[in-house]
Amino acid sequence: VRSDPLRIVLASPRNPLNIGAAARAISNFGFSHLRLVSPYDVAYHEARSAVRAKHVLEQSEVFTSMREAISDCTLIVGTTSVGHRGLHIPLYRLEQGAKLVREYLERGNVALLFGSEKFGLSNDELSHCNWAMRIPTRTEHASMNLGQAVAICLYELRRDDAIAQLPEYPQPENAPAESLERLLKVLMDLLVASGYASQPNSQSTELKLRQLLRRVKIPPHDAEVLLGMLRQVLWKIRNSGP
Amino acid sequence: VRSDPLRIVLASPRNPLNIGAAARAISNFGFSHLRLVSPYDVAYHEARSAVRAKHVLEQSEVFTSMREAISDCTLIVGTTSVGHRGLHIPLYRLEQGAKLVREYLERGNVALLFGSEKFGLSNDELSHCNWAMRIPTRTEHASMNLGQAVAICLYELRRDDAIAQLPEYPQPENAPAESLERLLKVLMDLLVASGYASQPNSQSTELKLRQLLRRVKIPPHDAEVLLGMLRQVLWKIRNSGP
Repeated sequence: VRSDPLRIVLASPRNPLNIGAAARAISNFGFSHLRLVSPYDVAYHEARSAVRAKHVLEQSEVFTSMREAISDCTLIVGTTSVGHRGLHIPLYRLEQGAKLVREYLERGNVALLFGSEKFGLSNDELSHCNWAMRIPTRTEHASMNLGQAVAICLYELRRDDAIAQLPEYPQPENAPAESLERLLKVLMDLLVASGYASQPNSQSTELKLRQLLRRVKIPPHDAEVLLGMLRQVLWKIRNSGP
Repeated sequence: VRSDPLRIVLASPRNPLNIGAAARAISNFGFSHLRLVSPYDVAYHEARSAVRAKHVLEQSEVFTSMREAISDCTLIVGTTSVGHRGLHIPLYRLEQGAKLVREYLERGNVALLFGSEKFGLSNDELSHCNWAMRIPTRTEHASMNLGQAVAICLYELRRDDAIAQLPEYPQPENAPAESLERLLKVLMDLLVASGYASQPNSQSTELKLRQLLRRVKIPPHDAEVLLGMLRQVLWKIRNSGP
């Protein structure tokens, strides 16, 4: 098995919680390599003492320059919330950019760069990038939290468009007609016993009730549970004196 | 314009940073309604004093029960990392679940439920849900950070599958052949002047270099910049006599 060819590179992260959150997302989505360029020392130390995603943090590497952090990569992709900065490289939306990254990971190492919490990637850091991608946030509030941005990018890399449309956990069938008819019978008995339906108009009530039972979706087991409950209520009504 | 029909409901959140992160993601992706069920008081207070996503936090509502928090919604969707818990409702992967939510938002209010940081949604909270969805994390480390989970779900709701394959920022054209030939000419002059290529084998060098220039992709403007640089170097070599 070829080892994980993706390197998640955080440039000058300042907040230990963000480093920890990035590590956790890397672990959640089955990636492994976290690289930090000139992290704030205290932040790195604190993050390493965090419990979650321990193996990712323990194996994380620290570099003093972006050049060294990406030296074994052949595709360098920046992330940016853009807006103002005049980019010198192509900018893709994440949906498309992630597709290109995924294809490239079959062939070579990719570095995915995230800028510092406050300023994002600098022009100097962006000059290492082949292209950039952005998460489709709204223009009025484009800048995302670092840990959340990392999580969304990694999610998109693992996303499966062709995933089955059916739920993973089986959707229960509806109860069979025979079961619904038994339910209808007890309900009618209850309505007559309680005085809601009188004999003369009971046929139209039965019709309405059958239609209602066909609109409501009742799984087989739930139909049996309801039947048991209603039978008990019926028994109580019939056996509690006048 | 119909007001935003999505309610993001956090059940018993404990960490102010997570409440703040959820609010920020809600703002990033253009949603508006944050609802909190029995948040830890201190956490809620601290989160409200956060700077980011102020309008979302200011409009957030606090409830003492899940029942009240979702009362105006007709579709209730839980989020879970599952694994062990025997779910009584259908479970979709986020890719599919988000599609269903998006379709439903055209017609009615949807509540999207997130459980507490430590325990996720309780069985009681899940009993309010029509179905649940899960973010496709790996089984060995399925549980996500709350703020990251909210961000990923909202991203998926805003995701556009049909987004143009081209970069938003235009991909530069390659320099025209005429421009590359001028570049080739200066390079050859340089190689001859520096003694790298001697007259006899200069034809094969020229061939190799033309092929190289066709493999390398050079945008028109960059070709001109390089040309200027190389001409200066050539001038220097020719004018610094032995």
